[in-house]
Amino acid sequence: MAEEKLPTRSEDFAEWYNQIVLKAEMADYAPVRGCMVVRPYGWTLWENIQAALDRRFKETGHVNAAFPLFIPMSFLEKEKEHVEGFSPELAVVTIGGGEKLEEPLIVRPTSETIIGYMYSKWIQSYRDLPVLINQWGNVVRWELRTKLFLRTLEFYWQEGHTAHATEEEAREETLRMLGVYADFAIHEAAVPVIQGVKSQTEKFAGAVMSTTIEAMMGDTRALQSGTSHYLGQNFARAFDIQFLDRNNTLQHCYTTSWGLSTRFIGAIIMTHGDDQGLILPPRLAPIQVVIVPIFKAEAETAAVLETVARIQSELKAAGIRVKVDDRTEVTPGFKYNDWEMRGVPLRMEVGPKDIEKQSVALARRDIPGREGKSFVPQTGLAATVTDMLADIQKSLLDRATAFRDSHIHQPKDYAELIEVVSNGWAYAWWCESAECEARIKEETKASSRCIPLDQDEGHGRCIVCGKDAKRKGYFAKAY
Amino acid sequence: MAEEKLPTRSEDFAEWYNQIVLKAEMADYAPVRGCMVVRPYGWTLWENIQAALDRRFKETGHVNAAFPLFIPMSFLEKEKEHVEGFSPELAVVTIGGGEKLEEPLIVRPTSETIIGYMYSKWIQSYRDLPVLINQWGNVVRWELRTKLFLRTLEFYWQEGHTAHATEEEAREETLRMLGVYADFAIHEAAVPVIQGVKSQTEKFAGAVMSTTIEAMMGDTRALQSGTSHYLGQNFARAFDIQFLDRNNTLQHCYTTSWGLSTRFIGAIIMTHGDDQGLILPPRLAPIQVVIVPIFKAEAETAAVLETVARIQSELKAAGIRVKVDDRTEVTPGFKYNDWEMRGVPLRMEVGPKDIEKQSVALARRDIPGREGKSFVPQTGLAATVTDMLADIQKSLLDRATAFRDSHIHQPKDYAELIEVVSNGWAYAWWCESAECEARIKEETKASSRCIPLDQDEGHGRCIVCGKDAKRKGYFAKAY
Repeated sequence: MAEEKLPTRSEDFAEWYNQIVLKAEMADYAPVRGCMVVRPYGWTLWENIQAALDRRFKETGHVNAAFPLFIPMSFLEKEKEHVEGFSPELAVVTIGGGEKLEEPLIVRPTSETIIGYMYSKWIQSYRDLPVLINQWGNVVRWELRTKLFLRTLEFYWQEGHTAHATEEEAREETLRMLGVYADFAIHEAAVPVIQGVKSQTEKFAGAVMSTTIEAMMGDTRALQSGTSHYLGQNFARAFDIQFLDRNNTLQHCYTTSWGLSTRFIGAIIMTHGDDQGLILPPRLAPIQVVIVPIFKAEAETAAVLETVARIQSELKAAGIRVKVDDRTEVTPGFKYNDWEMRGVPLRMEVGPKDIEKQSVALARRDIPGREGKSFVPQTGLAATVTDMLADIQKSLLDRATAFRDSHIHQPKDYAELIEVVSNGWAYAWWCESAECEARIKEETKASSRCIPLDQDEGHGRCIVCGKDAKRKGYFAKAY
Repeated sequence: MAEEKLPTRSEDFAEWYNQIVLKAEMADYAPVRGCMVVRPYGWTLWENIQAALDRRFKETGHVNAAFPLFIPMSFLEKEKEHVEGFSPELAVVTIGGGEKLEEPLIVRPTSETIIGYMYSKWIQSYRDLPVLINQWGNVVRWELRTKLFLRTLEFYWQEGHTAHATEEEAREETLRMLGVYADFAIHEAAVPVIQGVKSQTEKFAGAVMSTTIEAMMGDTRALQSGTSHYLGQNFARAFDIQFLDRNNTLQHCYTTSWGLSTRFIGAIIMTHGDDQGLILPPRLAPIQVVIVPIFKAEAETAAVLETVARIQSELKAAGIRVKVDDRTEVTPGFKYNDWEMRGVPLRMEVGPKDIEKQSVALARRDIPGREGKSFVPQTGLAATVTDMLADIQKSLLDRATAFRDSHIHQPKDYAELIEVVSNGWAYAWWCESAECEARIKEETKASSRCIPLDQDEGHGRCIVCGKDAKRKGYFAKAY
């Protein structure tokens, strides 16, 4: 219900976000600090995200499985960087069945260790490779500052874990899955992400190389939206994941891991939303079309509802996710605001005049007011709606891409970098040293987001220290 | 791989079960006591179960959501029977982010309490009712004796939680969802369950009435395979789930909960499996048809593989889940045994002679040997296979139903009851007293399974005490 006025995005982006998540009934605060409840509207969006990703995982040869929630503390300690990275964030079970446990169990923050342990049992020979397994589930990281979807103690995600015979294959897999994430983000969520490599400082604890898709939110801050890691032989050595190769020699596997979480819902909200509320990309929207029946006189009701029911079943049959808002206790105007706030891509109005003219009114969520409204014939309506949804999807991607590109700057010197990261991203030559990265962060709060995979050849001078730099990197304030 | 010989089911049913779960790669033991890893083959079966149930949940108006893994200890204590029932089984988180928690958090054993808390926030008016939410997730119960799928510390399930304005509606919902479970079990899993009401002793901790679907396993023991509970106003009172009714009077809701878990995989295995291994019902089988290409001479290979590839894509296009076993390091005979052990309903053999004759050989998993083998034309193969899968599905249900019915006895007196529960179920008049139930359990190890919903009118004398009894109940040894 949209009784209170939302703050505008320019007034207070953070508060706009919080309120829209609550009002649109995407999520709610749980009674446990830092945890969230994902409400049906938000969870259906997540189910659609899951389906779009899962299809891509299966097309690339992966299968799903389920590994335990609990991990013995000693497992984490087997990979030095891994335990250092995660130990401040752990939830620890010390009591089970009324008794103190001999070895405390941690609630998984990620599953490289326990999956590594199982892979060492399952993998014997090169014939068993590659192992390409994904898991959908929940993980827990004891965060201090939390924000619905973006950073919560418990969150939902998928984590892929693969094992390969060669470094080359494992590196290929890492980039393949990064590509899958980018393809999903761009073509399903209309979020124009940039693919790149994380700096050594920002990489996953235990990885040789981390890659990321980075998205620009409506306030120009960056959001890391999915990551894919090449783990080298680090976990294979820690957990003895070994195989006999074709020459009967024992070798350690090369492994990867990659994950995308409910955080991505935050990316969708903050990429597309406007001052009226959410705007959901049609391909993922739980409801693609909402039909609002209009009648003043009792006498008109039956005819309108009959037409609405017919249209509803036509659209359903065409695979369109449609909802009829037949509430009687609120006005059509209230309904318009309510569904706009919830980001339904297309609203259809059907009243007595429309029945007379054999037409309906369609209002696009992405184009407010009259400009986004059109009257179309009832004949061929499913095709008209399908086309319009595709057009909305495209227009959201175009708009987000244009916004992103207009807020990426190539500063000529460090002074300009400081200026541009106050309201955008800087793309600049960087020597890739941790010192220069730290200086930028300290002085501007912008972190290194990624070194993009696609970039021009050549080299230049580091924007901070002036030393020779082979690649350019993105720097931005981030969530 | 089927190197070691399975014990037969009559030799050692329990060991047959354990070995088949491991060998068919359905699940594995986790390095944490009592926990399991569900391997891809087992998880795909679970995904198919999920899809079959989720479709039914949505058709009956339910939506999915996600509630937190952690529940404050104080929540459990609000419902007296609930906390008594669950407190011996809890896993408790006492440390988070390196600090001792002020209030310990339990890892959910079930979510009535935390969902009840949220419902009290969300529900204000009769207009908000009914609330029909389901959650797919993991729960933890600190069991001492565990067995893969049947009883593990962590397991996967769905739990539905609904809130209603009236007792009548809530009771209807309880039985509706029991009916959904029975429909799923019978028509998707070919497991002929019996629907009934649990005794007061056996009901869910906190429920007014528990209902159950009970299945008979291959050793005649009963397995509780899904439960649906009418909770009355117990949780509504404990968590202040209240609404203003049409007369503007504040009322407590009536709630229900219902769940079905990965335990059901155990039901499928123990209902249909035989001494060769698993037999999976076609509607749920991860692989419905396995194609084994046969060739001796090199020269035959190309033609066989080409035909196999064509057939594979024909079957796929018809929506059949098909796999080609093109391993070169093992013999066709090894493959036959391997896929039999894994329970694939239908095996197709394609060799040079079949290509000559434009036919293929089909071998049904449910009918061993020559009797189950047929040679069919390649023309119209997708339709032939679809029909045969439907026939296998039906034959599995018929066989399980006949087995069940031949092991249900109506003992004439208590002495006969003792005899029949040693290898079957007893169906007998029962006064429904806890004393008679306890006596049966103590003297025979058989527990009361359920009082079936469908039973003849009339009354008789309790099989134990001889007092007047209004209903008959099932008694059996159970998992």
